[in-house]
Amino acid sequence: MLASIICIGTELVNGKTKDSNSYYISQKLITHGYRVGIKITVEDKLISITNSINFALSTSDILILTGGLGPTLDDITREAVSNAIGYPLEMNGSIKKKIIDILEKNHKKCPVNNFRQAYFPKGSQIIDNKNGTAAGFLVEFNSKKVFVLPGPPNEMKPMFNDYVLPMLKGFRNSSLIIKSYEIVGIGESALEEELMDFIQEYKNFSFATYALDGHITLTITAEEDTNLESAGLLKDLTNKIEKKIGDYIYSIDGSTLEEEVFKALLEKGLTLATAESCTGGLLASKLTSIPGISKVYEGGFITYSNNSKTRDLFVPSELISHQGAVSYEVAMSMLKGLKKRTLCNCGISITGIAGPEGGTATKPVGTVFVGINLKDYYEVIQLRLSGNRRRIQNLTTLTALNLLRKAIISKC
Amino acid sequence: MLASIICIGTELVNGKTKDSNSYYISQKLITHGYRVGIKITVEDKLISITNSINFALSTSDILILTGGLGPTLDDITREAVSNAIGYPLEMNGSIKKKIIDILEKNHKKCPVNNFRQAYFPKGSQIIDNKNGTAAGFLVEFNSKKVFVLPGPPNEMKPMFNDYVLPMLKGFRNSSLIIKSYEIVGIGESALEEELMDFIQEYKNFSFATYALDGHITLTITAEEDTNLESAGLLKDLTNKIEKKIGDYIYSIDGSTLEEEVFKALLEKGLTLATAESCTGGLLASKLTSIPGISKVYEGGFITYSNNSKTRDLFVPSELISHQGAVSYEVAMSMLKGLKKRTLCNCGISITGIAGPEGGTATKPVGTVFVGINLKDYYEVIQLRLSGNRRRIQNLTTLTALNLLRKAIISKC
Repeated sequence: MLASIICIGTELVNGKTKDSNSYYISQKLITHGYRVGIKITVEDKLISITNSINFALSTSDILILTGGLGPTLDDITREAVSNAIGYPLEMNGSIKKKIIDILEKNHKKCPVNNFRQAYFPKGSQIIDNKNGTAAGFLVEFNSKKVFVLPGPPNEMKPMFNDYVLPMLKGFRNSSLIIKSYEIVGIGESALEEELMDFIQEYKNFSFATYALDGHITLTITAEEDTNLESAGLLKDLTNKIEKKIGDYIYSIDGSTLEEEVFKALLEKGLTLATAESCTGGLLASKLTSIPGISKVYEGGFITYSNNSKTRDLFVPSELISHQGAVSYEVAMSMLKGLKKRTLCNCGISITGIAGPEGGTATKPVGTVFVGINLKDYYEVIQLRLSGNRRRIQNLTTLTALNLLRKAIISKC
Repeated sequence: MLASIICIGTELVNGKTKDSNSYYISQKLITHGYRVGIKITVEDKLISITNSINFALSTSDILILTGGLGPTLDDITREAVSNAIGYPLEMNGSIKKKIIDILEKNHKKCPVNNFRQAYFPKGSQIIDNKNGTAAGFLVEFNSKKVFVLPGPPNEMKPMFNDYVLPMLKGFRNSSLIIKSYEIVGIGESALEEELMDFIQEYKNFSFATYALDGHITLTITAEEDTNLESAGLLKDLTNKIEKKIGDYIYSIDGSTLEEEVFKALLEKGLTLATAESCTGGLLASKLTSIPGISKVYEGGFITYSNNSKTRDLFVPSELISHQGAVSYEVAMSMLKGLKKRTLCNCGISITGIAGPEGGTATKPVGTVFVGINLKDYYEVIQLRLSGNRRRIQNLTTLTALNLLRKAIISKC
């Protein structure tokens, strides 16, 4: 079935606020077997919203609208839906009471405007909002379904997951079985090649890859059948996939790579310190974006200058002048110095050329050495990365985290 | 005049690729005096694209389309435009020759498919593409103007700036004068309050603020008049604005705060080291995203644990136990230790509680101490930030960078 998404708000059209809702919703719709044909972002003008709804109704079976359900006079999504389908707005007494209750509980006055949020097109089914006063609604028109949800993601997402998704599942004749993998260390087209045999063998399964910032999410879906044959096939398929590309898979539940490293360190009672040259704190910054990371992360060094490598990590200055700061030997020496200084049982060292300048014929931009230490185990690998400075820095940190994750799994 | 933007590509609808074009275009259109009413993202299906164009034509004066101009069979924007307005596609000989030349120069074969890129709706004005084989075009229909550009941003942006913007300026009766400021350290509504008197006094000027990740861009525009009165008024206005909120303005040419700090350090021949606790490398990571930063940046310490503050920055452990790791005294001690260890003439220290845990009644989550050192000058300030962990970390780094920037300007 074909779905359209309409995001309402002048701040979305002029770029003041970045729309994240449509991306979230389209991913959910696609993995639940709907095709998304058109996404519209529209300003807070009645005629523009009404036109957009009419256009989407003419091309889709399912419409998801977000935004414009607030109490102020520029929140006009209710009126636009009513206009577009010709159902008058009617007051809902229990929602009105709920609005009064919420505002009283928060010791706020209840401006008359707030009651606008109690009006819905005739025949609407109310979608409860646990996190705000803006209730959503579902209204049907010419056997098309129009879902209307508030704009703030923290209100929209639970309403979409708790109400809209179960309803959408009900509209389909069959349900889907889904498995998704988080993958790092392989490009999207190389991954596709690895999977080609499976894609050709398992024709009833759809394979979707989604690449972002060096990660890939692989989602495999199939229609569920009554004799559970597809579920059995999925098990066969995922066994084969995990055998073939298991090295690149770091999570099957959608967590980030740094979260997986955090979990592994915590579980094994390990502590980590980092020493970064060309990534300049990006690795540490990813780790410290995780709440509670202080349980396992001791701290780090950004040894950007040669002098700081020697001073803070005891890398002999002769080693740097003989081998170059970007070398296997210096990465190893940083790792050993890091251990000596911090006494942590895990360490990561990084030294490389992120560019755009600093490359040479033998060590071009993108040459990076990544070292990991786990107790007595030391490993340094060389990378040859392409792309701009930020991409090289990002891929380096992903590689480093994955290297440590794999070492902990295989050696602890 | 009202404009619509249509971004074409299934990968944009299903979220595989994030659309950045529409954001770029809408910002440019708005600052050049156009209103953007609707943005549409549409899959690579002829009927969906044709319908979207027809819908946009029914509501707007100007259409900007991007994407779907490639050589492969799923690139069907040319056909969709031709369908929508009823002008047949015609081959353009000089573009055909250009395509052959480009492919030969790159030693590539010229598949017949590539010639699809030489077809345009009858009467189109060609828009040259200096960075690829996909030429753009402008076609007029019922006095509406339809601009069609390729999807890759590195091809689209120069074509938009060099061809589309000058044409758009020509369609307007007057041109605009524009001034924009990059601002940090004040919220959007507080900024609006500061500007309220000016907004009321200078009624012919429009004030637009755009907040992202703790920065605000303030853009002031007015119609240019023949007697240059508005240009004079703009000068008066910007003088007053710079006097009133100059402390928050870090750039008038759109550069980032870390670039401004880099420039200031470089110009004054200063060197910088950083010591971060709760921001965990985010500050260093921002600095080291700048190519060439090694000219001024020596390196940094992520002293996440108390032990590392003492070991690496000589913060007395009694000071930490008496004052707490998150305190004025510890931030100052980190700063002094950083100087002692690195001998840099500038330093930044950060210690705080980014949350979600670790807050107390006297030091709630969001309590952060930021210290800066410039030669003999030392300053530590306390922040009380709200929001989630990433927001607190981000605002802290912005505050620290701005504090140092202001110190360099006022004291060097």
